[in-house]
Amino acid sequence: MHSDLPQFRVNAVNRALEPALRRKIDNKTKPLGALGRLENLALQLGLIQNTLTPQLNKPHMLLCAGDHGAAKSGVSAFPQDVTWQMVENFLAGGAAINTLARQAGMALVIADAGVNRDFGPRPGLIDAKVAPGTANYLDGAAMTPAHAVTALSRGAALARDIAATGCNVLAFGEMGIGNTASASLITHCLTGIPLADCVGRGTGLDDAGLARKHDLLAQALDVWRERSDDAPAVLARFGGYEIAMLAGAMLAAAEAGMVLLIDGFIVTSALLVAAGIEPAIRDYCVFAHRSDEAGHRRQLEHLGAEPLLNLGLRLGEGTGAALAYPLLVSACAFLAEMASFESAAVSGKL
Amino acid sequence: MHSDLPQFRVNAVNRALEPALRRKIDNKTKPLGALGRLENLALQLGLIQNTLTPQLNKPHMLLCAGDHGAAKSGVSAFPQDVTWQMVENFLAGGAAINTLARQAGMALVIADAGVNRDFGPRPGLIDAKVAPGTANYLDGAAMTPAHAVTALSRGAALARDIAATGCNVLAFGEMGIGNTASASLITHCLTGIPLADCVGRGTGLDDAGLARKHDLLAQALDVWRERSDDAPAVLARFGGYEIAMLAGAMLAAAEAGMVLLIDGFIVTSALLVAAGIEPAIRDYCVFAHRSDEAGHRRQLEHLGAEPLLNLGLRLGEGTGAALAYPLLVSACAFLAEMASFESAAVSGKL
Repeated sequence: MHSDLPQFRVNAVNRALEPALRRKIDNKTKPLGALGRLENLALQLGLIQNTLTPQLNKPHMLLCAGDHGAAKSGVSAFPQDVTWQMVENFLAGGAAINTLARQAGMALVIADAGVNRDFGPRPGLIDAKVAPGTANYLDGAAMTPAHAVTALSRGAALARDIAATGCNVLAFGEMGIGNTASASLITHCLTGIPLADCVGRGTGLDDAGLARKHDLLAQALDVWRERSDDAPAVLARFGGYEIAMLAGAMLAAAEAGMVLLIDGFIVTSALLVAAGIEPAIRDYCVFAHRSDEAGHRRQLEHLGAEPLLNLGLRLGEGTGAALAYPLLVSACAFLAEMASFESAAVSGKL
Repeated sequence: MHSDLPQFRVNAVNRALEPALRRKIDNKTKPLGALGRLENLALQLGLIQNTLTPQLNKPHMLLCAGDHGAAKSGVSAFPQDVTWQMVENFLAGGAAINTLARQAGMALVIADAGVNRDFGPRPGLIDAKVAPGTANYLDGAAMTPAHAVTALSRGAALARDIAATGCNVLAFGEMGIGNTASASLITHCLTGIPLADCVGRGTGLDDAGLARKHDLLAQALDVWRERSDDAPAVLARFGGYEIAMLAGAMLAAAEAGMVLLIDGFIVTSALLVAAGIEPAIRDYCVFAHRSDEAGHRRQLEHLGAEPLLNLGLRLGEGTGAALAYPLLVSACAFLAEMASFESAAVSGKL
């Protein structure tokens, strides 16, 4: 598979501007450090864009949907049909992400990565379907190596198309019944975090459902004899197409120097795949929130990430990213607009 | 003093709509509870407005500024002149709150509650000055009972004027060198939280400065022989005029059924005063953020409040409230706009 992998070149951000950015932040008319996390965010955005005046242009939310063969084995509290029904809900404008993306001023791009439904040509839906759902990883690989490569490549193409509109900040969302299970397996394999710490209630499993999910995922690991911590191999074994497509989109977006706005548990599992391929992608990531899904906290710790919000969300779709987006705007705005002590003739510290 | 206190009638919110609001929230196309804290916020906003479709109209930020006699005794890291210099910065549009209120779409109202500076008539500045700064509470009462009543009344009048514009959500901010010290004393007296837990670094005291501030405040308590936990008495003894004016504005705003968006440590000390006068005000309060100023966490615990953001802010001016405001908009928006399981024909839980 590796020989066919699309090639990405993600460079670590150039930190040469860091001292000048810090000086600019520190000279704003406020006590030193008083804007807290917003100051770190402004610094990061400046470094990503390599400028003292970062700007966010044409923000987009890329929401990829896919079905999971393992959903039929009982890893979710909802039936698999909810995946396509929610895609219809996105297209009709009735889901949470429609409302929140609109409020944030983000263009919402819905891509069918691998939903088990023939939507036909539909305005507002990008047909990037690799296959009508993955195979069940309890029986073998979720996808063939070729399909994994296709999904990564299509995701990359989507991100490049979005970048071509002038967008420089891309958020990621997902829909797929069963995809917290997939994300749990990916997270366990790529980070070494114990499986039990990676498995959560998803859309609302009860205690018995949670125990069953854990046992099924342990079984899925057991039957994988070639077990590896190689990101593309883990992706093909356990991934959803939506996760693969998001990972490809992230890699292309970071390669293009965009700001990546990372949502919750499933999107972060896609980032783990992308970071397994190009570790420098981490520099481009702003972590929107800490989800209530068990395992997200552990992913964030693993990545050394401090998310912006902690609102007990566990909805997916990119909702946490949309809710956090105004904070990115604020970070750019204070850096651009606030007066300095000198310009405002305000006295400094005694 | 009490006989002269302006009278407020703040009723607890009517909880009759709570079951219907919960049903509406639970029927949205998302797993039960998946919007986390946003769901509680939507419920609260619905209860305050007594409707299934809460709306936020003409949001305003009321920023009151005042000087503190005790500032000259060394309770702050910045010189007292910074209060008026920052008022000039607000009027020129160069402060953090200018940027953040503009981004949030909030009208910014700047009121001189008691700054030690003659600004003269100035466009954009409301002259509500009670006196050019408080007296030093190390020597006696910060303000006379009559001045405390004047400040409360003027604050109430400001809130009523703002309500008359059609505004139904009012955020509060402050500026005043030395006002974390005042807030520490008020918090200690009204909650019983040990003084040491109420005293923080403010605009950036070092360890020696912090110890000195604590000792000065302990001394201020010692010299108050009539010591009491009566809110108006505590306010007059230790208050800033900006704190008194904010407390009056909060009481009138709650009386008018507005949503009160509470910022950090100093604004919360004003709320403690207001709640000491009319405890039901708590129902109307949305807590924007947990500040890094020591003591704010303790205030929030005392009030049983769970703030929306936790970004390590310690700037004041209402900046945390402005940053949190989009989340209130989101809460109303999901309640108004999202489809239900029935309307979107999405299957429920298995």
